[in-house]
Amino acid sequence: MAENLTTVISSKTQTVEINRAKPTIIIGERINPTGRKKVLKALQEGDFEMVREDATSQVAAGAAVLDVNAGVPGADEPALLQQVMRTVLEVTDVPLCIDTADPEALEAALSLYEGKALVNSVNGEERALGVVLPLVQEYGAAVIGLCMDDDGIPETPEQRLAVAGMIIERAGALGIPPEDVVIDPLALTMGADSNAGRVALETIELLVEEFGVNITMGASNISFGMPDRKYINAAFIAMAIRAGLTCPITNPLVTEVITAVLAADLSMGRDDYGMLWIQAYRQREKAAQG
Amino acid sequence: MAENLTTVISSKTQTVEINRAKPTIIIGERINPTGRKKVLKALQEGDFEMVREDATSQVAAGAAVLDVNAGVPGADEPALLQQVMRTVLEVTDVPLCIDTADPEALEAALSLYEGKALVNSVNGEERALGVVLPLVQEYGAAVIGLCMDDDGIPETPEQRLAVAGMIIERAGALGIPPEDVVIDPLALTMGADSNAGRVALETIELLVEEFGVNITMGASNISFGMPDRKYINAAFIAMAIRAGLTCPITNPLVTEVITAVLAADLSMGRDDYGMLWIQAYRQREKAAQG
Repeated sequence: MAENLTTVISSKTQTVEINRAKPTIIIGERINPTGRKKVLKALQEGDFEMVREDATSQVAAGAAVLDVNAGVPGADEPALLQQVMRTVLEVTDVPLCIDTADPEALEAALSLYEGKALVNSVNGEERALGVVLPLVQEYGAAVIGLCMDDDGIPETPEQRLAVAGMIIERAGALGIPPEDVVIDPLALTMGADSNAGRVALETIELLVEEFGVNITMGASNISFGMPDRKYINAAFIAMAIRAGLTCPITNPLVTEVITAVLAADLSMGRDDYGMLWIQAYRQREKAAQG
Repeated sequence: MAENLTTVISSKTQTVEINRAKPTIIIGERINPTGRKKVLKALQEGDFEMVREDATSQVAAGAAVLDVNAGVPGADEPALLQQVMRTVLEVTDVPLCIDTADPEALEAALSLYEGKALVNSVNGEERALGVVLPLVQEYGAAVIGLCMDDDGIPETPEQRLAVAGMIIERAGALGIPPEDVVIDPLALTMGADSNAGRVALETIELLVEEFGVNITMGASNISFGMPDRKYINAAFIAMAIRAGLTCPITNPLVTEVITAVLAADLSMGRDDYGMLWIQAYRQREKAAQG
Protein backbone atom coordinates (compact mmCIF):
# COMPACT_ATOMS: atom_id res chain seq x y z
CA MET A 1 0.00 0.00 0.00
CA ALA A 2 1.54 3.28 -1.13
CA GLU A 3 1.52 6.35 1.10
CA ASN A 4 -1.28 8.83 0.36
CA LEU A 5 0.29 11.80 -1.40
CA THR A 6 -0.72 15.43 -0.92
CA THR A 7 -1.24 17.63 -3.98
CA VAL A 8 -1.04 21.33 -3.19
CA ILE A 9 -2.49 23.85 -5.60
CA SER A 10 -2.94 27.54 -4.98
CA SER A 11 -4.13 30.90 -6.18
CA LYS A 12 -2.65 34.26 -5.18
CA THR A 13 -4.28 34.04 -1.75
CA GLN A 14 -5.66 30.51 -1.29
CA THR A 15 -4.05 27.11 -0.91
CA VAL A 16 -5.91 23.84 -1.44
CA GLU A 17 -4.51 20.54 -0.19
CA ILE A 18 -5.78 17.38 -1.81
CA ASN A 19 -5.25 14.29 0.33
CA ARG A 20 -7.23 11.11 0.88
CA ALA A 21 -7.54 11.66 4.64
CA LYS A 22 -9.21 15.05 4.15
CA PRO A 23 -12.64 16.05 2.81
CA THR A 24 -13.05 15.66 -0.95
CA ILE A 25 -12.05 18.67 -3.07
CA ILE A 26 -14.69 19.55 -5.66
CA ILE A 27 -13.44 21.01 -8.93
CA GLY A 28 -16.39 22.93 -10.41
CA GLU A 29 -16.95 21.90 -14.04
CA ARG A 30 -19.37 24.51 -15.31
CA ILE A 31 -17.09 27.15 -16.83
CA ASN A 32 -16.93 25.20 -20.07
CA PRO A 33 -18.79 25.87 -23.32
CA THR A 34 -18.62 22.21 -24.38
CA GLY A 35 -22.19 20.98 -24.64
CA ARG A 36 -23.58 24.21 -23.18
CA LYS A 37 -25.03 26.22 -26.02
CA LYS A 38 -25.86 29.30 -23.96
CA VAL A 39 -22.32 29.57 -22.61
CA LEU A 40 -20.87 28.98 -26.07
CA LYS A 41 -23.03 31.73 -27.57
CA ALA A 42 -22.22 34.16 -24.76
CA LEU A 43 -18.47 33.61 -25.13
CA GLN A 44 -18.72 34.01 -28.90
CA GLU A 45 -20.43 37.34 -28.30
CA GLY A 46 -17.87 38.45 -25.72
CA ASP A 47 -20.41 38.25 -22.91
CA PHE A 48 -18.73 37.02 -19.71
CA GLU A 49 -21.62 37.47 -17.31
CA MET A 50 -22.41 33.77 -17.29
CA VAL A 51 -18.78 32.95 -16.47
CA ARG A 52 -19.05 35.31 -13.52
CA GLU A 53 -22.27 33.65 -12.35
CA ASP A 54 -20.91 30.13 -12.81
CA ALA A 55 -17.83 31.04 -10.78
CA THR A 56 -19.78 32.61 -7.93
CA SER A 57 -22.48 29.97 -7.71
CA GLN A 58 -20.11 27.01 -7.85
CA VAL A 59 -17.89 28.36 -5.09
CA ALA A 60 -20.96 29.08 -2.96
CA ALA A 61 -22.14 25.51 -3.53
CA GLY A 62 -18.85 23.99 -2.40
CA ALA A 63 -16.32 24.04 -5.26
CA ALA A 64 -12.82 24.58 -3.84
CA VAL A 65 -11.26 24.78 -7.32
CA LEU A 66 -12.76 25.93 -10.63
CA ASP A 67 -12.11 24.31 -13.97
CA VAL A 68 -11.82 26.94 -16.73
CA ASN A 69 -12.30 25.94 -20.34
CA ALA A 70 -12.65 28.30 -23.30
CA GLY A 71 -12.83 25.80 -26.12
CA VAL A 72 -14.95 27.82 -28.52
CA PRO A 73 -14.63 26.60 -32.12
CA GLY A 74 -12.98 29.22 -34.31
CA ALA A 75 -12.03 31.49 -31.41
CA ASP A 76 -8.57 32.78 -30.45
CA GLU A 77 -8.37 30.35 -27.56
CA PRO A 78 -5.26 31.74 -25.83
CA ALA A 79 -6.83 35.21 -25.61
CA LEU A 80 -10.29 33.90 -24.74
CA LEU A 81 -9.00 31.60 -21.99
CA GLN A 82 -7.08 34.51 -20.45
CA GLN A 83 -10.22 36.63 -20.59
CA VAL A 84 -12.27 33.88 -18.93
CA MET A 85 -9.62 33.56 -16.20
CA ARG A 86 -9.57 37.32 -15.59
CA THR A 87 -13.35 37.28 -15.32
CA VAL A 88 -13.27 34.46 -12.79
CA LEU A 89 -10.63 36.27 -10.75
CA GLU A 90 -12.93 39.29 -10.50
CA VAL A 91 -15.38 37.32 -8.39
CA THR A 92 -13.38 34.62 -6.60
CA ASP A 93 -9.86 33.67 -5.70
CA VAL A 94 -10.09 29.87 -5.54
CA PRO A 95 -7.31 28.05 -7.41
CA LEU A 96 -7.99 27.21 -11.05
CA CYS A 97 -7.82 24.07 -13.10
CA ILE A 98 -6.72 25.13 -16.60
CA ASP A 99 -8.60 23.01 -19.09
CA THR A 100 -7.44 23.16 -22.70
CA ALA A 101 -6.22 20.91 -25.48
CA ASP A 102 -4.37 23.84 -27.11
CA PRO A 103 -0.71 24.17 -26.01
CA GLU A 104 -0.65 27.89 -26.83
CA ALA A 105 -3.74 28.51 -24.76
CA LEU A 106 -2.17 26.48 -21.95
CA GLU A 107 0.99 28.57 -22.02
CA ALA A 108 -0.99 31.81 -22.18
CA ALA A 109 -3.04 30.70 -19.19
CA LEU A 110 -0.06 29.55 -17.13
CA SER A 111 1.85 32.76 -17.85
CA LEU A 112 -1.11 34.80 -16.60
CA TYR A 113 -1.86 32.66 -13.55
CA GLU A 114 -0.53 33.68 -10.13
CA GLY A 115 -0.12 30.61 -7.96
CA LYS A 116 0.17 26.88 -8.63
CA ALA A 117 -2.44 25.79 -11.14
CA LEU A 118 -3.76 22.34 -11.94
CA VAL A 119 -3.39 21.61 -15.65
CA ASN A 120 -6.21 19.63 -17.31
CA SER A 121 -4.71 17.53 -18.87
CA VAL A 122 -1.96 15.37 -20.26
CA ASN A 123 -2.36 11.79 -21.38
CA GLY A 124 0.01 9.01 -22.32
CA GLU A 125 0.25 9.97 -26.00
CA GLU A 126 3.80 10.88 -26.99
CA ARG A 127 2.70 14.16 -28.51
CA ALA A 128 0.86 15.27 -25.37
CA LEU A 129 3.64 14.20 -23.01
CA GLY A 130 6.18 16.10 -25.08
CA VAL A 131 4.21 19.33 -25.16
CA VAL A 132 2.31 19.52 -21.87
CA LEU A 133 4.77 18.19 -19.29
CA PRO A 134 7.51 20.74 -20.07
CA LEU A 135 4.99 23.55 -19.58
CA VAL A 136 3.81 22.03 -16.31
CA GLN A 137 7.42 21.82 -15.17
CA GLU A 138 8.34 25.32 -16.33
CA TYR A 139 5.44 26.97 -14.53
CA GLY A 140 5.60 24.74 -11.44
CA ALA A 141 2.04 23.52 -11.88
CA ALA A 142 0.35 20.22 -11.08
CA VAL A 143 -1.19 18.14 -13.85
CA ILE A 144 -4.02 15.71 -14.48
CA GLY A 145 -2.90 12.55 -16.28
CA LEU A 146 -5.55 10.64 -18.23
CA CYS A 147 -5.26 6.85 -18.42
CA MET A 148 -5.04 6.65 -22.22
CA ASP A 149 -2.16 6.54 -24.66
CA ASP A 150 -1.39 6.23 -28.38
CA ASP A 151 -3.31 2.95 -28.40
CA GLY A 152 -6.45 4.58 -26.98
CA ILE A 153 -8.18 3.88 -23.67
CA PRO A 154 -7.15 0.52 -22.25
CA GLU A 155 -9.90 -1.92 -21.36
CA THR A 156 -8.61 -3.31 -18.09
CA PRO A 157 -7.76 -1.65 -14.77
CA GLU A 158 -4.26 -3.15 -14.90
CA GLN A 159 -3.57 -1.63 -18.32
CA ARG A 160 -4.85 1.77 -17.18
CA LEU A 161 -2.59 1.51 -14.12
CA ALA A 162 0.35 0.92 -16.44
CA VAL A 163 -0.45 4.07 -18.45
CA ALA A 164 -0.71 6.07 -15.22
CA GLY A 165 2.64 4.69 -14.12
CA MET A 166 4.20 5.73 -17.39
CA ILE A 167 2.83 9.29 -17.10
CA ILE A 168 4.08 9.56 -13.51
CA GLU A 169 7.49 8.32 -14.64
CA ARG A 170 7.73 10.72 -17.58
CA ALA A 171 6.70 13.58 -15.31
CA GLY A 172 9.31 12.51 -12.78
CA ALA A 173 12.01 12.53 -15.45
CA LEU A 174 11.29 16.26 -15.89
CA GLY A 175 11.39 16.90 -12.17
CA ILE A 176 7.61 16.90 -11.61
CA PRO A 177 7.07 14.87 -8.42
CA PRO A 178 4.34 12.18 -8.20
CA GLU A 179 2.29 14.29 -5.80
CA ASP A 180 1.88 16.82 -8.62
CA VAL A 181 0.38 14.24 -10.96
CA VAL A 182 -3.34 13.69 -10.37
CA ILE A 183 -4.65 10.67 -12.26
CA ASP A 184 -7.99 10.38 -14.06
CA PRO A 185 -8.91 6.68 -14.49
CA LEU A 186 -11.52 7.65 -17.14
CA ALA A 187 -15.13 6.74 -16.53
CA LEU A 188 -16.72 5.75 -19.82
CA THR A 189 -20.40 5.34 -20.62
CA MET A 190 -22.11 2.38 -18.98
CA GLY A 191 -24.82 2.47 -21.62
CA ALA A 192 -22.17 1.40 -24.13
CA ASP A 193 -20.30 -1.00 -21.84
CA SER A 194 -21.88 -2.45 -18.71
CA ASN A 195 -18.43 -2.81 -17.15
CA ALA A 196 -17.42 0.85 -17.52
CA GLY A 197 -18.22 1.73 -13.90
CA ARG A 198 -16.60 -1.37 -12.47
CA VAL A 199 -13.42 -0.81 -14.48
CA ALA A 200 -13.18 2.83 -13.32
CA LEU A 201 -13.69 1.87 -9.66
CA GLU A 202 -11.15 -0.93 -9.82
CA THR A 203 -8.65 1.32 -11.57
CA ILE A 204 -8.99 3.83 -8.73
CA GLU A 205 -8.35 1.12 -6.14
CA LEU A 206 -5.25 -0.05 -7.99
CA LEU A 207 -3.93 3.51 -8.34
CA VAL A 208 -4.34 4.13 -4.61
CA GLU A 209 -2.62 0.91 -3.70
CA GLU A 210 0.24 1.25 -6.16
CA PHE A 211 1.00 4.97 -6.27
CA GLY A 212 -1.04 6.73 -3.53
CA VAL A 213 -1.63 9.56 -6.02
CA ASN A 214 -4.61 11.84 -5.95
CA ILE A 215 -7.44 10.96 -8.31
CA THR A 216 -9.83 13.09 -10.29
CA MET A 217 -12.65 12.07 -12.56
CA GLY A 218 -15.47 13.59 -14.54
CA ALA A 219 -18.20 11.49 -13.02
CA SER A 220 -21.10 12.22 -15.32
CA ASN A 221 -20.12 10.53 -18.60
CA ILE A 222 -20.84 7.28 -16.88
CA SER A 223 -24.62 7.78 -17.09
CA PHE A 224 -24.82 9.15 -20.63
CA GLY A 225 -27.95 7.94 -22.44
CA MET A 226 -29.63 6.65 -19.25
CA PRO A 227 -32.76 8.11 -17.65
CA ASP A 228 -32.53 9.82 -14.24
CA ARG A 229 -28.80 10.43 -14.69
CA LYS A 230 -28.31 12.51 -11.56
CA TYR A 231 -29.05 9.52 -9.35
CA ILE A 232 -26.52 7.35 -11.16
CA ASN A 233 -23.90 10.09 -10.94
CA ALA A 234 -24.58 10.53 -7.23
CA ALA A 235 -24.19 6.85 -6.33
CA PHE A 236 -21.18 6.45 -8.60
CA ILE A 237 -19.33 9.43 -7.16
CA ALA A 238 -19.93 8.22 -3.59
CA MET A 239 -18.57 4.78 -4.50
CA ALA A 240 -15.60 6.33 -6.30
CA ILE A 241 -14.76 8.44 -3.25
CA ARG A 242 -14.86 5.30 -1.16
CA ALA A 243 -12.50 3.70 -3.70
CA GLY A 244 -10.09 6.64 -3.50
CA LEU A 245 -11.30 9.52 -5.70
CA THR A 246 -10.10 12.73 -4.05
CA CYS A 247 -10.93 15.64 -6.40
CA PRO A 248 -13.86 14.99 -8.77
CA ILE A 249 -14.60 17.44 -11.55
CA THR A 250 -18.33 17.89 -11.22
CA ASN A 251 -21.24 20.29 -10.91
CA PRO A 252 -21.77 21.20 -7.25
CA LEU A 253 -25.08 22.86 -8.10
CA VAL A 254 -26.74 19.46 -8.59
CA THR A 255 -28.08 18.64 -5.14
CA GLU A 256 -27.84 14.86 -5.63
CA VAL A 257 -24.16 15.13 -6.55
CA ILE A 258 -22.93 17.62 -3.95
CA THR A 259 -24.80 15.73 -1.22
CA ALA A 260 -23.29 12.44 -2.41
CA VAL A 261 -19.80 13.91 -2.07
CA LEU A 262 -20.48 15.38 1.36
CA ALA A 263 -22.26 12.23 2.55
CA ALA A 264 -19.36 10.11 1.35
CA ASP A 265 -16.96 12.21 3.43
CA LEU A 266 -19.33 12.02 6.39
CA SER A 267 -19.62 8.24 6.02
CA MET A 268 -15.85 7.87 5.97
CA GLY A 269 -15.28 9.83 9.18
CA ARG A 270 -13.87 12.93 7.48
CA ASP A 271 -16.53 15.33 8.69
CA ASP A 272 -16.39 15.71 12.47
CA TYR A 273 -19.82 16.13 14.03
CA GLY A 274 -21.26 16.51 10.51
CA MET A 275 -20.29 20.19 10.60
CA LEU A 276 -19.58 20.34 6.85
CA TRP A 277 -22.81 18.50 6.09
CA ILE A 278 -24.91 20.89 8.18
CA GLN A 279 -23.14 23.97 6.81
CA ALA A 280 -23.78 22.85 3.22
CA TYR A 281 -27.40 22.10 4.06
CA ARG A 282 -27.85 25.66 5.33
CA GLN A 283 -26.18 27.00 2.21
CA ARG A 284 -28.61 25.02 0.02
CA GLU A 285 -31.58 26.27 2.06
CA LYS A 286 -30.34 29.83 1.69
CA ALA A 287 -29.81 29.44 -2.05
CA ALA A 288 -33.28 27.89 -2.45
CA GLN A 289 -34.85 30.88 -0.73
CA GLY A 290 -33.06 33.14 -3.20
CA MET B 1 -10.22 -13.82 0.45
CA ALA B 2 -13.13 -16.10 1.31
CA GLU B 3 -15.44 -17.42 -1.39
CA ASN B 4 -18.70 -15.47 -1.78
CA LEU B 5 -21.47 -17.57 -0.27
CA THR B 6 -25.01 -17.85 -1.62
CA THR B 7 -27.94 -17.54 0.76
CA VAL B 8 -31.15 -19.03 -0.59
CA ILE B 9 -34.48 -18.05 0.89
CA SER B 10 -37.88 -18.92 -0.48
CA SER B 11 -41.62 -18.67 -0.23
CA LYS B 12 -44.10 -21.28 -1.42
CA THR B 13 -43.49 -20.30 -5.05
CA GLN B 14 -40.46 -17.96 -5.19
CA THR B 15 -36.78 -18.45 -4.55
CA VAL B 16 -34.37 -15.58 -3.89
CA GLU B 17 -30.61 -16.08 -4.15
CA ILE B 18 -28.42 -13.61 -2.34
CA ASN B 19 -24.87 -13.50 -3.71
CA ARG B 20 -22.31 -10.73 -4.14
CA ALA B 21 -22.00 -11.28 -7.89
CA LYS B 22 -25.73 -10.70 -8.42
CA PRO B 23 -27.90 -7.60 -8.14
CA THR B 24 -28.57 -6.43 -4.59
CA ILE B 25 -31.61 -7.94 -2.87
CA ILE B 26 -33.78 -5.32 -1.18
CA ILE B 27 -35.60 -6.36 1.97
CA GLY B 28 -38.53 -3.96 2.33
CA GLU B 29 -38.63 -2.49 5.84
CA ARG B 30 -42.03 -0.84 6.00
CA ILE B 31 -44.24 -3.53 7.53
CA ASN B 32 -43.17 -2.52 10.99
CA PRO B 33 -45.08 -0.43 13.53
CA THR B 34 -41.90 0.77 15.26
CA GLY B 35 -41.78 4.53 14.89
CA ARG B 36 -44.83 4.54 12.56
CA LYS B 37 -47.80 5.74 14.58
CA LYS B 38 -50.38 5.17 11.85
CA VAL B 39 -49.34 1.55 11.36
CA LEU B 40 -49.25 1.00 15.10
CA LYS B 41 -52.75 2.39 15.52
CA ALA B 42 -54.12 0.38 12.59
CA LEU B 43 -52.66 -2.87 13.93
CA GLN B 44 -54.03 -2.11 17.40
CA GLU B 45 -57.46 -1.69 15.83
CA GLY B 46 -57.17 -4.86 13.77
CA ASP B 47 -56.98 -2.91 10.51
CA PHE B 48 -54.59 -4.63 8.08
CA GLU B 49 -55.23 -2.49 5.02
CA MET B 50 -51.98 -0.59 5.49
CA VAL B 51 -50.04 -3.85 5.73
CA ARG B 52 -51.57 -4.87 2.41
CA GLU B 53 -50.61 -1.56 0.83
CA ASP B 54 -47.08 -1.62 2.23
CA ALA B 55 -46.59 -5.13 0.86
CA THR B 56 -47.90 -4.30 -2.61
CA SER B 57 -46.10 -0.99 -3.01
CA GLN B 58 -42.74 -2.22 -1.74
CA VAL B 59 -42.73 -5.21 -4.09
CA ALA B 60 -43.72 -2.95 -7.00
CA ALA B 61 -40.84 -0.63 -6.09
CA GLY B 62 -38.28 -3.41 -6.09
CA ALA B 63 -38.32 -5.28 -2.77
CA ALA B 64 -37.52 -8.96 -3.36
CA VAL B 65 -38.13 -9.87 0.28
CA LEU B 66 -40.41 -8.28 2.86
CA ASP B 67 -39.55 -7.78 6.50
CA VAL B 68 -42.58 -8.40 8.72
CA ASN B 69 -42.66 -7.00 12.23
CA ALA B 70 -45.69 -6.93 14.54
CA GLY B 71 -44.12 -5.47 17.65
CA VAL B 72 -47.15 -3.72 19.06
CA PRO B 73 -46.82 -3.01 22.81
CA GLY B 74 -49.35 -5.01 24.81
CA ALA B 75 -50.49 -7.10 21.85
CA ASP B 76 -50.51 -10.90 21.54
CA GLU B 77 -47.48 -10.81 19.25
CA PRO B 78 -47.52 -14.47 18.10
CA ALA B 79 -51.12 -14.15 16.88
CA LEU B 80 -50.63 -10.66 15.48
CA LEU B 81 -47.47 -11.60 13.57
CA GLN B 82 -49.26 -14.58 12.02
CA GLN B 83 -52.12 -12.30 11.03
CA VAL B 84 -49.71 -9.80 9.44
CA MET B 85 -48.04 -12.64 7.54
CA ARG B 86 -51.37 -13.99 6.29
CA THR B 87 -52.29 -10.50 5.12
CA VAL B 88 -49.03 -10.13 3.23
CA LEU B 89 -49.50 -13.52 1.60
CA GLU B 90 -52.87 -12.38 0.28
CA VAL B 91 -51.18 -9.81 -1.98
CA THR B 92 -47.68 -11.13 -2.72
CA ASP B 93 -45.62 -14.27 -2.55
CA VAL B 94 -42.12 -12.88 -2.07
CA PRO B 95 -40.12 -14.58 0.71
CA LEU B 96 -40.42 -13.06 4.18
CA CYS B 97 -37.94 -11.85 6.74
CA ILE B 98 -39.50 -12.60 10.12
CA ASP B 99 -38.64 -9.75 12.46
CA THR B 100 -39.36 -10.25 16.13
CA ALA B 101 -37.62 -10.18 19.49
CA ASP B 102 -40.23 -12.57 20.95
CA PRO B 103 -39.27 -16.27 20.73
CA GLU B 104 -42.91 -17.35 20.86
CA ALA B 105 -43.82 -15.05 18.02
CA LEU B 106 -40.82 -16.35 16.08
CA GLU B 107 -41.92 -19.94 16.53
CA ALA B 108 -45.52 -19.11 15.62
CA ALA B 109 -44.32 -17.36 12.47
CA LEU B 110 -41.94 -20.14 11.44
CA SER B 111 -44.57 -22.81 11.99
CA LEU B 112 -46.97 -20.91 9.72
CA TYR B 113 -44.43 -20.06 7.02
CA GLU B 114 -44.19 -22.22 3.91
CA GLY B 115 -40.69 -21.99 2.48
CA LYS B 116 -37.32 -20.97 3.88
CA ALA B 117 -37.61 -17.75 5.84
CA LEU B 118 -34.94 -15.29 6.91
CA VAL B 119 -35.08 -14.76 10.67
CA ASN B 120 -34.39 -11.22 11.94
CA SER B 121 -32.42 -11.69 14.16
CA VAL B 122 -30.01 -13.30 16.54
CA ASN B 123 -27.04 -11.59 18.15
CA GLY B 124 -24.04 -12.75 20.12
CA GLU B 125 -25.76 -12.64 23.49
CA GLU B 126 -25.88 -16.05 25.14
CA ARG B 127 -29.61 -15.83 25.73
CA ALA B 128 -30.38 -15.00 22.08
CA LEU B 129 -28.06 -17.67 20.69
CA GLY B 130 -29.63 -20.30 22.95
CA VAL B 131 -33.21 -19.46 21.97
CA VAL B 132 -33.10 -18.34 18.35
CA LEU B 133 -30.57 -20.66 16.71
CA PRO B 134 -32.39 -23.89 17.66
CA LEU B 135 -35.58 -22.52 16.07
CA VAL B 136 -33.67 -21.51 12.93
CA GLN B 137 -32.23 -25.01 12.75
CA GLU B 138 -35.51 -26.75 13.47
CA TYR B 139 -37.38 -24.89 10.73
CA GLY B 140 -34.51 -24.86 8.22
CA ALA B 141 -34.45 -21.07 8.02
CA ALA B 142 -31.64 -18.60 7.44
CA VAL B 143 -30.80 -16.02 10.11
CA ILE B 144 -29.46 -12.50 10.47
CA GLY B 145 -26.65 -12.23 13.02
CA LEU B 146 -26.07 -8.82 14.58
CA CYS B 147 -22.52 -7.84 15.52
CA MET B 148 -23.18 -7.33 19.23
CA ASP B 149 -22.90 -9.54 22.27
CA ASP B 150 -23.31 -9.51 26.05
CA ASP B 151 -20.77 -6.67 26.22
CA GLY B 152 -22.79 -4.51 23.80
CA ILE B 153 -21.80 -3.26 20.36
CA PRO B 154 -18.03 -3.42 19.85
CA GLU B 155 -16.29 -0.22 18.78
CA THR B 156 -13.85 -1.56 16.22
CA PRO B 157 -14.37 -3.46 12.96
CA GLU B 158 -12.05 -6.22 14.21
CA GLN B 159 -14.11 -6.74 17.35
CA ARG B 160 -17.34 -6.84 15.34
CA LEU B 161 -15.76 -9.39 13.02
CA ALA B 162 -14.98 -11.53 16.05
CA VAL B 163 -18.61 -11.43 17.21
CA ALA B 164 -19.77 -12.40 13.70
CA GLY B 165 -17.30 -15.27 13.71
CA MET B 166 -18.65 -16.49 17.02
CA ILE B 167 -22.26 -16.39 15.76
CA ILE B 168 -21.30 -18.28 12.60
CA GLU B 169 -19.50 -20.86 14.72
CA ARG B 170 -22.37 -21.32 17.13
CA ALA B 171 -24.78 -21.68 14.19
CA GLY B 172 -22.43 -24.22 12.61
CA ALA B 173 -22.38 -26.26 15.80
CA LEU B 174 -26.15 -26.72 15.39
CA GLY B 175 -25.81 -27.63 11.72
CA ILE B 176 -26.71 -24.21 10.30
CA PRO B 177 -24.19 -23.61 7.49
CA PRO B 178 -22.36 -20.26 7.10
CA GLU B 179 -24.32 -19.43 3.95
CA ASP B 180 -27.47 -19.37 6.08
CA VAL B 181 -26.04 -16.76 8.42
CA VAL B 182 -26.39 -13.22 7.07
CA ILE B 183 -24.41 -10.71 9.10
CA ASP B 184 -25.47 -7.18 10.07
CA PRO B 185 -22.37 -5.07 10.92
CA LEU B 186 -24.62 -2.48 12.66
CA ALA B 187 -24.60 1.05 11.36
CA LEU B 188 -24.90 3.44 14.29
CA THR B 189 -25.72 7.14 14.25
CA MET B 190 -23.02 9.39 12.80
CA GLY B 191 -24.49 12.35 14.65
CA ALA B 192 -23.37 10.67 17.88
CA ASP B 193 -20.08 9.29 16.56
CA SER B 194 -18.39 10.66 13.44
CA ASN B 195 -16.75 7.28 12.87
CA ALA B 196 -19.97 5.24 12.81
CA GLY B 197 -20.13 5.07 9.01
CA ARG B 198 -16.45 4.29 8.59
CA VAL B 199 -16.61 1.50 11.17
CA ALA B 200 -19.65 -0.08 9.47
CA LEU B 201 -18.01 0.05 6.03
CA GLU B 202 -14.75 -1.39 7.29
CA THR B 203 -16.60 -4.13 9.17
CA ILE B 204 -18.33 -5.10 5.92
CA GLU B 205 -15.01 -5.30 4.11
CA LEU B 206 -13.51 -7.50 6.82
CA LEU B 207 -16.57 -9.79 6.83
CA VAL B 208 -16.35 -10.26 3.06
CA GLU B 209 -12.66 -11.01 3.18
CA GLU B 210 -12.80 -13.34 6.15
CA PHE B 211 -16.10 -15.20 5.76
CA GLY B 212 -17.62 -14.36 2.35
CA VAL B 213 -21.02 -14.25 4.06
CA ASN B 214 -23.93 -12.20 2.87
CA ILE B 215 -24.46 -8.89 4.62
CA THR B 216 -27.57 -6.98 5.58
CA MET B 217 -27.93 -3.61 7.23
CA GLY B 218 -30.59 -1.15 8.18
CA ALA B 219 -29.00 1.80 6.43
CA SER B 220 -31.05 4.68 7.79
CA ASN B 221 -29.99 4.89 11.45
CA ILE B 222 -26.73 6.29 10.22
CA SER B 223 -28.27 9.69 9.42
CA PHE B 224 -30.45 10.06 12.50
CA GLY B 225 -30.60 13.68 13.69
CA MET B 226 -29.10 15.10 10.48
CA PRO B 227 -30.90 17.27 7.92
CA ASP B 228 -31.61 15.90 4.42
CA ARG B 229 -31.28 12.32 5.65
CA LYS B 230 -32.34 10.65 2.40
CA TYR B 231 -29.20 11.90 0.64
CA ILE B 232 -26.94 10.54 3.37
CA ASN B 233 -28.75 7.20 3.32
CA ALA B 234 -28.43 7.03 -0.47
CA ALA B 235 -24.68 7.68 -0.57
CA PHE B 236 -24.05 5.40 2.39
CA ILE B 237 -25.99 2.48 0.94
CA ALA B 238 -24.14 2.78 -2.41
CA MET B 239 -20.78 2.77 -0.60
CA ALA B 240 -21.87 -0.15 1.57
CA ILE B 241 -22.87 -2.16 -1.52
CA ARG B 242 -19.45 -1.44 -2.98
CA ALA B 243 -17.94 -2.67 0.30
CA GLY B 244 -19.98 -5.88 0.18
CA LEU B 245 -23.52 -5.29 1.47
CA THR B 246 -25.79 -7.71 -0.39
CA CYS B 247 -29.29 -7.44 1.13
CA PRO B 248 -30.07 -4.10 2.79
CA ILE B 249 -33.24 -3.70 4.84
CA THR B 250 -34.58 -0.41 3.56
CA ASN B 251 -37.53 1.48 2.12
CA PRO B 252 -37.63 1.03 -1.66
CA LEU B 253 -40.29 3.76 -1.94
CA VAL B 254 -37.67 6.45 -1.26
CA THR B 255 -36.43 7.36 -4.74
CA GLU B 256 -32.98 8.41 -3.55
CA VAL B 257 -32.45 5.08 -1.81
CA ILE B 258 -33.81 2.68 -4.44
CA THR B 259 -31.89 4.53 -7.17
CA ALA B 260 -28.70 4.38 -5.09
CA VAL B 261 -29.06 0.60 -4.83
CA LEU B 262 -29.77 0.17 -8.53
CA ALA B 263 -27.02 2.60 -9.54
CA ALA B 264 -24.55 0.78 -7.32
CA ASP B 265 -25.37 -2.48 -9.10
CA LEU B 266 -25.11 -0.74 -12.46
CA SER B 267 -21.74 0.79 -11.50
CA MET B 268 -20.41 -2.59 -10.47
CA GLY B 269 -21.28 -4.31 -13.74
CA ARG B 270 -24.22 -6.30 -12.32
CA ASP B 271 -26.88 -4.80 -14.56
CA ASP B 272 -26.29 -5.73 -18.21
CA TYR B 273 -27.25 -2.93 -20.60
CA GLY B 274 -28.84 -1.09 -17.67
CA MET B 275 -31.98 -3.16 -18.14
CA LEU B 276 -32.83 -3.22 -14.42
CA TRP B 277 -32.17 0.52 -14.17
CA ILE B 278 -34.46 1.34 -17.07
CA GLN B 279 -37.17 -1.03 -15.90
CA ALA B 280 -37.16 0.55 -12.42
CA TYR B 281 -37.24 4.02 -13.97
CA ARG B 282 -40.38 3.09 -15.93
CA GLN B 283 -41.93 1.66 -12.78
CA ARG B 284 -41.27 4.95 -10.93
CA GLU B 285 -42.75 6.95 -13.80
CA LYS B 286 -45.83 4.74 -13.80
CA ALA B 287 -46.21 5.03 -10.01
CA ALA B 288 -45.80 8.82 -10.21
CA GLN B 289 -48.60 9.04 -12.75
CA GLY B 290 -50.82 7.09 -10.35
